[in-house]
Amino acid sequence: MSAGSRADRLAALIREEGLDQLLVGDLVTPSETGREAGANLRWLTGFTGTSGLVVAGADERLFFTDFRYVERAGREVAADFERVVIERGLLSDAAKRLRGRVGYDDAHTSVKNLGRLTELAPEGVELVAASGLVERLRRHKDDAELAAIAEAARLADEVYEWTFGQDLVGRTEREVMLAAHQRMRELGAEDPSFPAIVAAGENSALPHHESSDREIGAGEMLLIDMGAIVDGYCSDGTRTVATGKLDEEAREVYEVVRSAQAKALDAIRVGVSGPETDAVARDAIIAAGHGDEFGHGLGHGVGIQVHEAPRLSKRSEDTLEPGDVVTVEPGVYLPGRFGVRIEDLVTVTDNGCRNLSSVPKELRVLG
Amino acid sequence: MSAGSRADRLAALIREEGLDQLLVGDLVTPSETGREAGANLRWLTGFTGTSGLVVAGADERLFFTDFRYVERAGREVAADFERVVIERGLLSDAAKRLRGRVGYDDAHTSVKNLGRLTELAPEGVELVAASGLVERLRRHKDDAELAAIAEAARLADEVYEWTFGQDLVGRTEREVMLAAHQRMRELGAEDPSFPAIVAAGENSALPHHESSDREIGAGEMLLIDMGAIVDGYCSDGTRTVATGKLDEEAREVYEVVRSAQAKALDAIRVGVSGPETDAVARDAIIAAGHGDEFGHGLGHGVGIQVHEAPRLSKRSEDTLEPGDVVTVEPGVYLPGRFGVRIEDLVTVTDNGCRNLSSVPKELRVLG
Repeated sequence: MSAGSRADRLAALIREEGLDQLLVGDLVTPSETGREAGANLRWLTGFTGTSGLVVAGADERLFFTDFRYVERAGREVAADFERVVIERGLLSDAAKRLRGRVGYDDAHTSVKNLGRLTELAPEGVELVAASGLVERLRRHKDDAELAAIAEAARLADEVYEWTFGQDLVGRTEREVMLAAHQRMRELGAEDPSFPAIVAAGENSALPHHESSDREIGAGEMLLIDMGAIVDGYCSDGTRTVATGKLDEEAREVYEVVRSAQAKALDAIRVGVSGPETDAVARDAIIAAGHGDEFGHGLGHGVGIQVHEAPRLSKRSEDTLEPGDVVTVEPGVYLPGRFGVRIEDLVTVTDNGCRNLSSVPKELRVLG
Repeated sequence: MSAGSRADRLAALIREEGLDQLLVGDLVTPSETGREAGANLRWLTGFTGTSGLVVAGADERLFFTDFRYVERAGREVAADFERVVIERGLLSDAAKRLRGRVGYDDAHTSVKNLGRLTELAPEGVELVAASGLVERLRRHKDDAELAAIAEAARLADEVYEWTFGQDLVGRTEREVMLAAHQRMRELGAEDPSFPAIVAAGENSALPHHESSDREIGAGEMLLIDMGAIVDGYCSDGTRTVATGKLDEEAREVYEVVRSAQAKALDAIRVGVSGPETDAVARDAIIAAGHGDEFGHGLGHGVGIQVHEAPRLSKRSEDTLEPGDVVTVEPGVYLPGRFGVRIEDLVTVTDNGCRNLSSVPKELRVLG
């Protein structure tokens, strides 16, 4: 981890990229619609409101917000930013302060807002597409971030144990989801990191199933994919259990996934590439004859967002670095029948990884 | 309401705009990050997943999704769309089917994705900025939509009554918020339309306060702004109550807002402009000497999104039309002391409006 505040590290990166300034904040919808101001802005400044924008440069660190968020900005925004209350609008007030070669986040700036920026910027300003800069810094979690993510994972694990300790047969997926959300909040989570996926029987074969009114039956696969948010940071994990005795094929598929996941965990360490980690799990699943039934990547980074850099997949161009927090989640899905996914959340270290997920992975047959 | 399916109405609008095709769906982040596919896509097709894109034209109605959502798309997407499972990516597969003059939603397409589209589109395709078309159609709620919104409002009202029936003094804002969310879900809401704002005392002076660990005291203002989601449609409402006897100034401010809100409700009807409705409430508040303390617009449309067209504010260019559903929510905020906001949700009719909010507005002093 380099020294200095987040704003200092960003300033260094801005210089490296040959920019004078960088705009940070989602410029996707007009600010008045109140969308999330974006994970980059939150990471950089601490601001959790919905209307904010940063102009960062070597000399200036300006945080713009509107009157509704003055009090919150005063409380939340890092001290090295000058806080500016806008008079007309985020874009028009910020545009006045632009100078030189200004990077904007082309992945989070709408075509419409780029047009407005271009009109509003002073003579001589050159707007340059520059996405992914803050994301690059966000990959490297500091101790406070790691602590928040670990606590979110621990808390979700507690909800797993609590959920599996109950009689689930006869309840609907949605009921189990809502109960898990509620338990998570009671235990201190801000929110679930996403609506928990509770998928029974054939629904477990749908990697992104939405918990439904289907009742959980006896003797079937039950897949639960969930995470918690603690101090603004997400966890993400999956366990697949049996609600009674499974047939041999289902037990075999479970073991294929469990073994592939264990191998992938062993392969995680600083310096290994996304495609390499993916291949470890994928090769094991292919060797077991289920290669066509593992239709997603091995994992992804987790932090303020539940999906962020790096990506562990066939086409990823990322290589694991110290401070990365990633999921390791192979799966095998037999459409119309059942699916198995096992997902742990780990922090990447020089010698391997530290697993933040502690729920056992031997096939659990609920009582 | 014009006849025909939503896709038919959109096709007519596409023709009117001189376009051959329109792309519908958020193109803001790469599809693999799993953001909401967007309210426009949901309205047009019924799809609730996170990865979908429509190419709509006079002759074609193509719905693109990836393998994860095939089953859901089959269940949800309107029958007049041809469903296409992508092979490479949403953008690249959809781009192949573009022809002629193609509108894209420049408010919900990132600069980066427009660049990719431009590269991927066949020779001869002209990409034209065309935002707001689906939003224009979404304003006019049909009977099923009105029923969902009315039910969401009724359900939230039930949560108001349940909340006000309890002893709130000594509990934190956050506890009251979580209990309201939980009650909402128990009553059948999919979710709250946004995290309920529970703002006590001086916090009620912050229009977008986030419910905190502050305890609710006796004899102070308590503002609760919340809504529910039912069948994908939002409600939105606010009540301000007293947790014991208030001083005269606070009671007076309450009556100023209540009277301004009643006048604004009387002014709502088809054909009245956004600035006109805003002025009715604002003039009343100015006359009472609080003009500087009403720092937001009168209201906004509500539907799949909790903020959508039209806008009722000084600078709005919208005029009320049949089928509009809008909030009417004047407020007066005395920084550091207290604030009052009263917000109803109404459907706009030729002769006035139908109020979907039923919680009484006389100043309520909680027992």
